[in-house]
Amino acid sequence: MTTYNDSSAGEMQSKLLAMGEAARNASRKIANAPAELKNSWLSAMADALESNAQALIAANETDMKNGAAKGLSNAMLDRLKLDGKRIRGMADGLRHVVTLPDPAGEILSSATRPNGIRIDKVSVPLGVIGFIYESRPNVTVDAAGLCLKAGNAVILRGGSEAIHSNQALAQCIIEAGKSKGMPDGVIQLVPFTDHAAVSILLKMDQYINLVIPRGGERLIRAVVEQSTIPVIKHYKGVCHLYVDEEADPEMALAILRNGKCQRPGVCNALEKVLIHEKIAPSFVPLLARMFKEEGVKILGDASYCRLDPAAERAIEEDWSAEYLDLMITAGIVPSVEAAVDHINAYGSGHSDAIVTENAGNARYFLDHVDSATVYWNASTRFTDGGEFGMGAEIGISTDKLHARGPMGLRELTTYKYKIYGNGQIRV
Amino acid sequence: MTTYNDSSAGEMQSKLLAMGEAARNASRKIANAPAELKNSWLSAMADALESNAQALIAANETDMKNGAAKGLSNAMLDRLKLDGKRIRGMADGLRHVVTLPDPAGEILSSATRPNGIRIDKVSVPLGVIGFIYESRPNVTVDAAGLCLKAGNAVILRGGSEAIHSNQALAQCIIEAGKSKGMPDGVIQLVPFTDHAAVSILLKMDQYINLVIPRGGERLIRAVVEQSTIPVIKHYKGVCHLYVDEEADPEMALAILRNGKCQRPGVCNALEKVLIHEKIAPSFVPLLARMFKEEGVKILGDASYCRLDPAAERAIEEDWSAEYLDLMITAGIVPSVEAAVDHINAYGSGHSDAIVTENAGNARYFLDHVDSATVYWNASTRFTDGGEFGMGAEIGISTDKLHARGPMGLRELTTYKYKIYGNGQIRV
Repeated sequence: MTTYNDSSAGEMQSKLLAMGEAARNASRKIANAPAELKNSWLSAMADALESNAQALIAANETDMKNGAAKGLSNAMLDRLKLDGKRIRGMADGLRHVVTLPDPAGEILSSATRPNGIRIDKVSVPLGVIGFIYESRPNVTVDAAGLCLKAGNAVILRGGSEAIHSNQALAQCIIEAGKSKGMPDGVIQLVPFTDHAAVSILLKMDQYINLVIPRGGERLIRAVVEQSTIPVIKHYKGVCHLYVDEEADPEMALAILRNGKCQRPGVCNALEKVLIHEKIAPSFVPLLARMFKEEGVKILGDASYCRLDPAAERAIEEDWSAEYLDLMITAGIVPSVEAAVDHINAYGSGHSDAIVTENAGNARYFLDHVDSATVYWNASTRFTDGGEFGMGAEIGISTDKLHARGPMGLRELTTYKYKIYGNGQIRV
Repeated sequence: MTTYNDSSAGEMQSKLLAMGEAARNASRKIANAPAELKNSWLSAMADALESNAQALIAANETDMKNGAAKGLSNAMLDRLKLDGKRIRGMADGLRHVVTLPDPAGEILSSATRPNGIRIDKVSVPLGVIGFIYESRPNVTVDAAGLCLKAGNAVILRGGSEAIHSNQALAQCIIEAGKSKGMPDGVIQLVPFTDHAAVSILLKMDQYINLVIPRGGERLIRAVVEQSTIPVIKHYKGVCHLYVDEEADPEMALAILRNGKCQRPGVCNALEKVLIHEKIAPSFVPLLARMFKEEGVKILGDASYCRLDPAAERAIEEDWSAEYLDLMITAGIVPSVEAAVDHINAYGSGHSDAIVTENAGNARYFLDHVDSATVYWNASTRFTDGGEFGMGAEIGISTDKLHARGPMGLRELTTYKYKIYGNGQIRV
């Protein structure tokens, strides 16, 4: 399988432009496709993944061998790996998308104006979505399935270490879709592993309507800096728990443990805890014992460290760091207002929580923390499309335009106004 | 009044960054302000404009004199001019905004999940809006009023030719707002007339959440190219009328006349007419006579010109040109499908209309033209926030992300998820 690393820049550019044009044309062909038709493509893809499992695993073995030779870490190799169970997982994911309602074609509002024209606001697909991601090959299938269900064409660009897996997966689902009449160009995988391919893609605003990057902060920053296409993303999740002076300590401990320890490597895991100074003398020992049991390292501010001499001192950078590990930064604050100001200054606008029995403090926190999702007495780990009832999640946004927080199928649509008259003119 | 043209680049940059920080801080202070409070600021501004009309007109006279000396056209000088009537118009505009519902703080949806957490999706202000515009000084007041009503801070940057008018207007409304307790930094006008100031502003994504440019295509393209902040805009309105083979000719003529002639200089005016080849022999003579009466110049394709020998031949560039004048490009098409393909290839995604008595053709057109607003048997001139019942319009978007078509107050908000639990953790 050639990865075109030897293509000249001009050839690569013209191939990518042709992919963009094909995607735009395909997106127009399927924009009004009925749900049953799109579902028949998705179901065929699910079946094809399972019946081609051996070939997919064989392609993946090439990536695994290359990755081991390149010295990828065991964690990265694990992310890269495909096996029967993971392939069934992808197939089941597509079958789940089949069961979700079609987000396109919904009349969002309808109004008849005094002059008699009727204005319907109708959800429609965005058009072409560019998906740029790192090593997990399952994203190839998950992203394609969600974009397609919403009526969009998608251009996929996965990481170079997964190129053989991604090409095999893409070929498998594309052929399955085509066997049920899916037009050419609806799903395409960029065959180029050069970084230059991404740079070209990100300027193709004549063809691509939205770019969604999934991966580490470095990848996402590179995408945002280069793109002339709207990008929806989150850089990181620096999620806070504020333990109010009127917190139930047991509840606060349970939410802290869940937020920090259940799955420390995800973006909605807790990274920071702020404790009201009045509850701190009684609460910090409980927290310190619990985190010691869980093996969590604590970096505290001066006030925290006076109450927990085993903690290390945090440095300024700690307050905005996303550890994705069994570490947490802990600080003491004099008020809910101070907690909110701290979160707005150092947070990432992702998910932040207050534990309190005081409704006024909770309301202040929910109103004033400028984040996508704000919690009162619940774990930040719920920031997830599935937990929100969206059925599936294409990503999480800490942006404010278009989509904020977990993004489901609806966030892969826009709207248009359809206006019905009988000859009205403007006077 | 100094316009700081002589500031060093470093001074200008630090002043603009300070403005950005002040705006962000102000936006957080007013994000939860009750409607009555925001309305009291707006009412005070309206009164202050009227009671300071003489001073405003005096400041405007400086701009008018400078503009005349610089050789601005009469049309540009007319746009620039302030008089008692226009000042009353701005004041009444603000009073109208007072009557509109507050778009922030609305619960857009609410769901209780099986685990008992309640997820409320609540509209909230976007934060800080950067408004970049050209010569009309009324935009200073209109944009500030709409941004404020939605709970946002605004940084205004008007054209250099209106700097004295804009400074006087901004000072007047800021002082009036402050007299009723409006915080510092909610409304700010950039005092620098250098283009470099815009370039700096467009990179201040740490402070500004959305940029809205209003003006000619050249201004808007320059903004989009430089901005690292999301921009909502339309470049131009290349609006089409397609006269179907089953059109009512009288209705088609009335909509054509309204779309082209009522106000040719606006973005929702018609620029192109496509005529089905079957109706063309009978319809073109009616159209040609009507446009001759109205003084509209017609540029036709070869088929059109055979039916109307008085028409000039259009060149390729005509099909995507926005004339904003008494000119129209006319072509003959073999089918509704061909009309749709032409519009999707040459149009601007703004407003396009079909006139037909055939519901199937109308549905095909409405479904497949990829524009913000699509009309069946009505004039494209209705693409306007007021006509849509939005109460007021901050602009029109031909983008697909966040806002499409006319933008009202609601499009100046985003949302956040407020989540209420009683100790839930994720299992």
